[in-house]
Amino acid sequence: MPNNYHNKIQFNGIIENKFIETLVQKFKRSPIQQNALQESDAELIRIPGTTITIALTIDSVVEEIERGLYTDPYLIGWMTVVSNVSDLAAVGAEPIGILLNETLPPALGMDYLNRLQQGIHDACSESKIYVLGGDTNFSSNIQMSACAIGYLPDGDPVKRIGCKPGDHLFSSGKLGQGSSYAYLKFSGGSSMNIGHSHYKPKPRLQEGQIIRKYASSCMDTSDGFIPAIDQLMRLNHVGFNVDTSLMQFIHPEAIDLSQKAQIPLWMMLAGPHGEFELIFTIPDTSVDAFLKSASVLNWEPCALGKVIEDKELKLLQKDKFITLETGKIRNLFNEVNGNMDKYIKGLFSFNY
Amino acid sequence: MPNNYHNKIQFNGIIENKFIETLVQKFKRSPIQQNALQESDAELIRIPGTTITIALTIDSVVEEIERGLYTDPYLIGWMTVVSNVSDLAAVGAEPIGILLNETLPPALGMDYLNRLQQGIHDACSESKIYVLGGDTNFSSNIQMSACAIGYLPDGDPVKRIGCKPGDHLFSSGKLGQGSSYAYLKFSGGSSMNIGHSHYKPKPRLQEGQIIRKYASSCMDTSDGFIPAIDQLMRLNHVGFNVDTSLMQFIHPEAIDLSQKAQIPLWMMLAGPHGEFELIFTIPDTSVDAFLKSASVLNWEPCALGKVIEDKELKLLQKDKFITLETGKIRNLFNEVNGNMDKYIKGLFSFNY
Repeated sequence: MPNNYHNKIQFNGIIENKFIETLVQKFKRSPIQQNALQESDAELIRIPGTTITIALTIDSVVEEIERGLYTDPYLIGWMTVVSNVSDLAAVGAEPIGILLNETLPPALGMDYLNRLQQGIHDACSESKIYVLGGDTNFSSNIQMSACAIGYLPDGDPVKRIGCKPGDHLFSSGKLGQGSSYAYLKFSGGSSMNIGHSHYKPKPRLQEGQIIRKYASSCMDTSDGFIPAIDQLMRLNHVGFNVDTSLMQFIHPEAIDLSQKAQIPLWMMLAGPHGEFELIFTIPDTSVDAFLKSASVLNWEPCALGKVIEDKELKLLQKDKFITLETGKIRNLFNEVNGNMDKYIKGLFSFNY
Repeated sequence: MPNNYHNKIQFNGIIENKFIETLVQKFKRSPIQQNALQESDAELIRIPGTTITIALTIDSVVEEIERGLYTDPYLIGWMTVVSNVSDLAAVGAEPIGILLNETLPPALGMDYLNRLQQGIHDACSESKIYVLGGDTNFSSNIQMSACAIGYLPDGDPVKRIGCKPGDHLFSSGKLGQGSSYAYLKFSGGSSMNIGHSHYKPKPRLQEGQIIRKYASSCMDTSDGFIPAIDQLMRLNHVGFNVDTSLMQFIHPEAIDLSQKAQIPLWMMLAGPHGEFELIFTIPDTSVDAFLKSASVLNWEPCALGKVIEDKELKLLQKDKFITLETGKIRNLFNEVNGNMDKYIKGLFSFNY
């Protein structure tokens, strides 16, 4: 993420958004594509002459490996699948499968390779999807990417856009384990008597299919809660008042870390490494029906608060509302060129 | 391609095939997938409850960049698209678009980036497809990959399998420019008074849609003619008698190089860098109808010869039939770990 272009081109407040806009500025949009740039987690393509929408996404595990965030080949394989399938979940698609793109160092041992493929296999089994094909290349650095495909039989996905003030904000599960994993990985949890993280996110596929029936917007937290909320704020021109206490919806592992390492709770939501839950909004009139459908799955979504008109994010931390500068938090990792020490210091300087 | 596993595991004669089989050995096949492993250039997925088949492919431009085969960012962008779209052409799909996966060095200049994106843009315009989405990562090495999607409204693709002795073998155009480009790039053409290559392959999309109506098998020459023929031989348990003189169907640029550098003509078909034409087989009874359809496009396919029972490849070089050890030729690049000098020497040692 950190790079030279970013320093030159900042528009729309967010470095990453602007860089993507620069890359695609000459590309025309397909007339059968149902989403504009940034409007949904997966690309949505209506098959001509049908009511069927294909959901398609491509995602890499590159920086996570280079920075040493993922070192276990099993986790690398697992996350290669999950990071893609989670985008299918966020549009409510029925998943079909993935195509793998493995760039492998020639000297990689068979043990490493077997664990890598086992992680892929298990994540596919968990998601009830298949490996459909792939491409293999050899290079000095391991880089994994994949493309996931799913479909919406009635052609009606949920996107990132559509929420309105008054809608209820939910998350599919507790948040913050993406950050606690990264912190423990880089700082060493053992010195704090916390041990290692149990980070192993599962794509919320079944939940996504319920969400799309009722929700006015949805996005996954692949980059963390605050970056996802910031993106929803920019796309929908709204804000969020999260009046559920952070203690209620932050993951126990992240709460434990926060207390032992004396890190403010809100920082567990900062990203840019996320936990791959879904955050979504439900219009007031649909909340009861939504919760009834969720209970059939034995799924308890977390009620977080409401969409508001003011373009800001309010969080309830230790009985006190704090208002977060989400754009600044989101840009920070790029601005410090991904330096973890500077990033943590920068987060502390917000002083919420 | 060259790597440690290859030295350990050789099965089915071909190093690359066996490595892929090792990678996927634990993966189950999707019940809605219409092709088995290796059976088609693109993965073919029947959308449940419809007659529609989705064609999906993922391909990288990694080794070509690392080895210095592609240095012009425009060509890198162009080939990222073409290598994927060519696989859609080879199954006869109507193309829809691509998703890009760009891994970029942070220090890349804007000029480089603009030329890269222009190459992508122009290849998409040429193919009448759209960029549907993508993912961008930053790393020390540039790596490009993409995923292409297309569809077959009636669900009836052409695959690599299905040809029978007596079928006619064609190519969509003249062959050998993949090899002449690589040779000129690495050896420097100027010393031979040849200049630079005009390599810029165009996906044979319209041709592929005609081919699938008549053909019993089809494959692109992304890895060169001999590797493609070898794969068709193994999949179909047949051989090929190419009784059209090499001079008739080898690209003028490759003929020129062959004469000036005193390289036997057959070597222009060796790969592993190909020219992205299609090779395909047409049953005897369909040849006239096929040629009539081709003429409507003002397209003149090259008639190469016939499918035969003996599992061998015969070529007509300088009025003399030669029988090629296609498996050995195909494995050579891996066996010399991609060393170009050793590869060329190894090819000369075949002494055809």
